Amino acid sequence: MPPTEYAVQVRFSDVDHLGHVNHARHLSFFEDARMALIAASPSGLPGSPADRGCIAARLTVDYLRPVTYQPGEAAQVRTWVARIGRSSWTLTHQLWQDDALAASCDIVLVAYDYAAGSARLLDDDERAWWERHRGDA
Amino acid sequence: MPPTEYAVQVRFSDVDHLGHVNHARHLSFFEDARMALIAASPSGLPGSPADRGCIAARLTVDYLRPVTYQPGEAAQVRTWVARIGRSSWTLTHQLWQDDALAASCDIVLVAYDYAAGSARLLDDDERAWWERHRGDA
Amino acid sequence: MPPTEYAVQVRFSDVDHLGHVNHARHLSFFEDARMALIAASPSGLPGSPADRGCIAARLTVDYLRPVTYQPGEAAQVRTWVARIGRSSWTLTHQLWQDDALAASCDIVLVAYDYAAGSARLLDDDERAWWERHRGDA
Amino acid sequence: MPPTEYAVQVRFSDVDHLGHVNHARHLSFFEDARMALIAASPSGLPGSPADRGCIAARLTVDYLRPVTYQPGEAAQVRTWVARIGRSSWTLTHQLWQDDALAASCDIVLVAYDYAAGSARLLDDDERAWWERHRGDA
Repeated sequence: MPPTEYAVQVRFSDVDHLGHVNHARHLSFFEDARMALIAASPSGLPGSPADRGCIAARLTVDYLRPVTYQPGEAAQVRTWVARIGRSSWTLTHQLWQDDALAASCDIVLVAYDYAAGSARLLDDDERAWWERHRGDA
Repeated sequence: MPPTEYAVQVRFSDVDHLGHVNHARHLSFFEDARMALIAASPSGLPGSPADRGCIAARLTVDYLRPVTYQPGEAAQVRTWVARIGRSSWTLTHQLWQDDALAASCDIVLVAYDYAAGSARLLDDDERAWWERHRGDA
Repeated sequence: MPPTEYAVQVRFSDVDHLGHVNHARHLSFFEDARMALIAASPSGLPGSPADRGCIAARLTVDYLRPVTYQPGEAAQVRTWVARIGRSSWTLTHQLWQDDALAASCDIVLVAYDYAAGSARLLDDDERAWWERHRGDA
Repeated sequence: MPPTEYAVQVRFSDVDHLGHVNHARHLSFFEDARMALIAASPSGLPGSPADRGCIAARLTVDYLRPVTYQPGEAAQVRTWVARIGRSSWTLTHQLWQDDALAASCDIVLVAYDYAAGSARLLDDDERAWWERHRGDA
């Protein structure tokens, strides 16, 4: 399956004193793309009634180019599954603006049993759904 | 002229512990709608080369209904000019979600000479442009 | 009683492209000062088990001077009760930096019965507590 | 030299719908600790007149425990230099709350010539200063 596309709206207040989108906001852009994907999956949106349990354990971001704001300007996030394990999986997010890759992020999500306070195994339907979103740079 | 419409994208991270968009984020939504309007005006975007000088002096917000987040969900901001003076003008912003009015804001903008550190008169072309965006609730 | 003092820590990312703390962040500074006060009151922190119900209905902010960031730099919020009614009360927040008043805010809080979805009367102990924090500019 | 300590103030609005500090805010906490350190160094604060040029190229965050908000509550960031190269260096930030390690971050900073748009060599006094802040978990 091709990467899932998500258009994020850059805000005036995302930009810091240096004139570029602050490096922490990239995580919010990736988060929104991820939430849209998780909401469509059997895993369920964190905090929603459908939530089977999932936490972010680790992420890496490479910053390649500054992201800028112009009124109404968007940026695109492309997301795919880079890896699936028994109780965790890794998403790759890429942030694009003006047809240039601005940043990329790998994030490890852990299937998590909130009640037990420990990792859980991914259910078969979850695994199958995420498997269909596997991709590659 | 009818109110200017601006669609804002609600983010997962706009929502606070109470499950609704935090009350401070409304100002960012209004800000983005305002920036789009100012960018199209002769007044020029704050901080841009075209900027003739403009600062926010005062604002009032009425909170009517909570704003919520769903992945990909938007909210609409309607903006019009409520008042024009010699060196200041007032915009009214309304935030709508699901066809309900969630909040409204009046903000007083002051034409400002950054170099002199004091208010300036609005130029004729600025005043004429903003005059055309006058509206009414 | 003199105004309640709350020191807020300014962050690098509070500053926008114009080099000053973004106008929306003032609301977060005031919010934190208010939460500290509400947590000490019988009204209870919003969302906490002690919460008797309280929502923000309206606020006005006057922006007087820009707020700046230096590493480790703080700003002070002074808060007092400006008005108490039967089911609502008004707090005044002032934001100070370097002994200059940078902004002031009046916010109307409404005692609110979440279950009923309507305003409630302030309890006697709440009213008495807030009455003791009355102040004046 | 022992790690540099920086106390960050957690805000009500840092917390997301799940009741914990949103994962993107950790980057802002680390950023503020880093800015305090850079401001004291010969490298100069990004965007300040003393700035010799420095950009963030890559970061990795491990999320170990949720960070919570209570009014007035702080968290501690411990920072040290993990690696120094010819034109880049790596800082390790740890976020602690209630004597427990909540998150850690490695961030690669690149000495950067803004005018040339390319990496530059670290000056001797910069390298010597950062060398003195080397540490180890």
